[in-house]
Amino acid sequence: MFKEAIYHRPKNNYAYAYSKDSLHIRLRTKKNDLVQVDLIYADPYNWDDTGWLFEQKAMRLEASDQLFDYWMIDVTVPYRRLRYGFKLSNEEEIIYYTEKGFYDKAPTDDTAYYFCFPFINPIDIFQAPEWVKHTVWYQIFPERFANGDSSINPINTLPWGSTKATPTNFFGGDFAGILQHIDYLVDLGINGIYFTPIFKAASNHKYDTIDYMEIDPQFGDKDTFRKLVNACHEKGIKVMLDAVFNHSGYYFEPFQDVLRHQEKSAYKDWFHIREFPVTPGPKPNYDTFAFVDYMPKLNTENPEVKDYFLKVARYWIEEFNIDGWRLDVANEVDHQFWRDFRREIKATNPGVYILGEIWHDSMPWLQGDQFDAVMNYPFTIAALDYIAKQKINAQEFANQLTEVLCSYPNNVNEVTFNLLGSHDTARVLTVCQDDKEKAKLLYFLLLSSKGTPCIYYGEEIGMSGENDPGCRDCMIWEEEKQDVDFKAFMKKMIHLRKTEAAFGSEASLEVVEATIESNHLIYAREHNNERIYFMVNPSKQPISVSFPVRADRKQVKDVWNKQKIAVIDGNVKVDIPAVGFGVVKVD
Amino acid sequence: MFKEAIYHRPKNNYAYAYSKDSLHIRLRTKKNDLVQVDLIYADPYNWDDTGWLFEQKAMRLEASDQLFDYWMIDVTVPYRRLRYGFKLSNEEEIIYYTEKGFYDKAPTDDTAYYFCFPFINPIDIFQAPEWVKHTVWYQIFPERFANGDSSINPINTLPWGSTKATPTNFFGGDFAGILQHIDYLVDLGINGIYFTPIFKAASNHKYDTIDYMEIDPQFGDKDTFRKLVNACHEKGIKVMLDAVFNHSGYYFEPFQDVLRHQEKSAYKDWFHIREFPVTPGPKPNYDTFAFVDYMPKLNTENPEVKDYFLKVARYWIEEFNIDGWRLDVANEVDHQFWRDFRREIKATNPGVYILGEIWHDSMPWLQGDQFDAVMNYPFTIAALDYIAKQKINAQEFANQLTEVLCSYPNNVNEVTFNLLGSHDTARVLTVCQDDKEKAKLLYFLLLSSKGTPCIYYGEEIGMSGENDPGCRDCMIWEEEKQDVDFKAFMKKMIHLRKTEAAFGSEASLEVVEATIESNHLIYAREHNNERIYFMVNPSKQPISVSFPVRADRKQVKDVWNKQKIAVIDGNVKVDIPAVGFGVVKVD
Repeated sequence: MFKEAIYHRPKNNYAYAYSKDSLHIRLRTKKNDLVQVDLIYADPYNWDDTGWLFEQKAMRLEASDQLFDYWMIDVTVPYRRLRYGFKLSNEEEIIYYTEKGFYDKAPTDDTAYYFCFPFINPIDIFQAPEWVKHTVWYQIFPERFANGDSSINPINTLPWGSTKATPTNFFGGDFAGILQHIDYLVDLGINGIYFTPIFKAASNHKYDTIDYMEIDPQFGDKDTFRKLVNACHEKGIKVMLDAVFNHSGYYFEPFQDVLRHQEKSAYKDWFHIREFPVTPGPKPNYDTFAFVDYMPKLNTENPEVKDYFLKVARYWIEEFNIDGWRLDVANEVDHQFWRDFRREIKATNPGVYILGEIWHDSMPWLQGDQFDAVMNYPFTIAALDYIAKQKINAQEFANQLTEVLCSYPNNVNEVTFNLLGSHDTARVLTVCQDDKEKAKLLYFLLLSSKGTPCIYYGEEIGMSGENDPGCRDCMIWEEEKQDVDFKAFMKKMIHLRKTEAAFGSEASLEVVEATIESNHLIYAREHNNERIYFMVNPSKQPISVSFPVRADRKQVKDVWNKQKIAVIDGNVKVDIPAVGFGVVKVD
Repeated sequence: MFKEAIYHRPKNNYAYAYSKDSLHIRLRTKKNDLVQVDLIYADPYNWDDTGWLFEQKAMRLEASDQLFDYWMIDVTVPYRRLRYGFKLSNEEEIIYYTEKGFYDKAPTDDTAYYFCFPFINPIDIFQAPEWVKHTVWYQIFPERFANGDSSINPINTLPWGSTKATPTNFFGGDFAGILQHIDYLVDLGINGIYFTPIFKAASNHKYDTIDYMEIDPQFGDKDTFRKLVNACHEKGIKVMLDAVFNHSGYYFEPFQDVLRHQEKSAYKDWFHIREFPVTPGPKPNYDTFAFVDYMPKLNTENPEVKDYFLKVARYWIEEFNIDGWRLDVANEVDHQFWRDFRREIKATNPGVYILGEIWHDSMPWLQGDQFDAVMNYPFTIAALDYIAKQKINAQEFANQLTEVLCSYPNNVNEVTFNLLGSHDTARVLTVCQDDKEKAKLLYFLLLSSKGTPCIYYGEEIGMSGENDPGCRDCMIWEEEKQDVDFKAFMKKMIHLRKTEAAFGSEASLEVVEATIESNHLIYAREHNNERIYFMVNPSKQPISVSFPVRADRKQVKDVWNKQKIAVIDGNVKVDIPAVGFGVVKVD
């Protein structure tokens, strides 16, 4: 047995409360090294004269990636306390794994050997708002979605779509424009909008905030925003705003005050100034976002700064009833700030979703005390590498998917924010070198993924564009220029996502087949006894796949083409077109 | 290369801020599998046209345990942000390990491959009070230390030491008694007292609190307690109290109110009641400590309960100037309560030490937002198994020691609370089957350990006793009954601990030799260029050990016997008696 490959450490993704009386326990072992793993467990105080009395229950092989197998079990814990260890079996030996190491026999003279989950305290359970699980997000970059009120155009506004986006040009997108197109969004089927920043700022992207308490006048005023939120809510659409609290803009009044009064400024501790005089330039002598001198980093440890930003966070919830905050550059702000942020937000409205922008492994922010979710860029990268760039094959993609899912608790995975692109990346179609079928395959993956999917504006009508500024072109509203076929595909996928339980967040996900040769992927998802097989074929050859169906499952249906499929000798056979997919439901 | 054995995940013990501009980064690999590990690292925004520009620096082999090598590096981070990966070398291959997996070449087209420590925010750095590092603790069980005021004896008080302790008898120990013996403690050399509970309670151990705002009248009153704290402070002794916030006693007024008024009680949500009527008994229908019906578990999620206990915590700091809180059954209370507790305590007095009673792996409580330390029972168990019970040999002990040290950040290890026994375990001498030389060896280990040592009252004069109630006998004050030799040994060790930097908390610790054959252990500790070799020989044969001394180290001294030692051909040779030790300082 490869003992060195075995990993378990309580809390995080390895032992966590899934509900008030159930614990999920996971063990990592070397791939194909063990044939069975059992959990041995009991209440720590469950003793008689012979010693500690424990139970034993087989764990299921949850998933495998390139190097490891992951074993999982859901245990009910009547007294909310648990001591536990693992019985590891392969063909040659049986050994017991505990916090104190490996043993030939399970010790019963003391519970101190064993791993401990001391108590399930409900307040510590990771819990995101329930509605998030049922949301299909749509990301709007307000300057570029629609210009509905030319009277508030910023100076030098260009005619809508008259030219490509540049880092500095303006097209006058605004709230009135969005309001005019609410029905478009309803028709598409989305039920959540993530807005990039809307507060007063100098640039077209508004990440350089001047005033966190004011709407940028080019978008409208507070009344228009209130109308917009209400209109969304009437249509069942949630509204999430972008909180840029890591840094301010250059023209944020406190930073201007520092520039004016330097060491004498009452705001000098609002930032991280290394020396006076403060000197903007290519190597600023104060902390910034990256090395961007017009984005000075805020000192969120300063109680004044914290109070100010918590006030901002509450204000837009209390006054405008927004449903979520997306936190820009969330990983560079202190954990303590986010803990206080969560407390304030949830006290104001427990239904508000807190989404952090973090591109890397995010476990330290997802322990229940800070965020509800992060933006799942590891999914983005893996999906694009598999389908669009063909840098990795189906097996490598499946491994990466598994690795991400197994690196978090399940309750975290249910609300993670999955995306294929954003205002910070090239558009999907461009990454696919304009191959629309590949782009569809990617959206097929996204909309059938565990977690909640987000579509960047315009993707649904076949817009393309390189990374910033290319991905920030004006939304195309002339129907003759929209890709109608692509839009129909997206609508159908969104509809399935929202109506078929096995497409949803809470459905399990299991990789059924991921081959190097034909490069296809089959995964099955299941919820409440509804099971769907998803088949992805990115290769240029059509393929035919088959898989067995459990004897008690009678109905087999092609969900996409709405056709019954025959079960022959307990097997189902499905033809998948080149660069195509299949969706088969088994009841 | 055994890729499956390689482990790293940022934060916790693997990547943590040691100071405002330095990060500690650790990597675990299979034992003896690699010959070199280099960190490759840079600011995430350090780019030119060729890609990401990183530096490379060799990591040192920090320690090894049974299965793993641990590699460590301290990196200075000028902009407080870091992306990094590992270059792994053995005789056959060189590969690069990143968050996204293994590569033959270090990728430079994106930093998203790499591990990320996004920003060192000072408020998130684990920081315990500085004084803790220099403290030698002494644990007092107040009912049994000294009876100085017979006028406040509880009913049925027995003459001091007239009989053995039982679970229910009383000897009238009190604050006046402790006050009379402050000079004894000063003479011993300790500079911190941990008191088990002193608040009003029915039992002799006082873990069943009746009133958290009152001193138990058998110990004295608030004035006597104030006098006691002041007397300690005058002598440079810190005072830590026991906070029993997981559960109350049966006679705690809110629980009595629940018993009286049941569902109608205003306090019904102060506890975890499963059903009404509340029925104490062997299987109580409410949550308790273990299954002890007279210790009902408190609902610390209830804001009223939280407010009450935070008020209690502040009160004894503000009014009596105590220096620490030891948290009973800390692991079963919710994390959110402890976060709020820390915030309140540190706002009241940042110098107050917060010590959790947790017997198992405690990383989730030691991330900087909850405790300053936990009681290091894994050290206790390993040390007793090695010296007293001879269940494990020197190599196994060294492995267990290493495993514990490498499972936490260094700043955590510097203030961990090391102990050999307490009111919850048999006394050291008893575990040693009355072998005083073995007991000395154990205290030699304890007082030369990384972290802060604690001595349970009476151990220093050779008291013995089985587990509760045996370990709770009256302190022996008749000098003729005290073991003078043992006390002299303890005084000398405490003195060395406090005066030799290499004995202290901040000194590094490195296992030099740990053999199965002769079962001896040599470890070296170093601080500010002072290096001390500690030699432990638990076997019944005297042994002779030798080790090389670096050429630039000229002075070699036996610190215990105050003798110079000759360096012959760059080597030092030391004779260690049977069941004995050696301490050699090299300057």
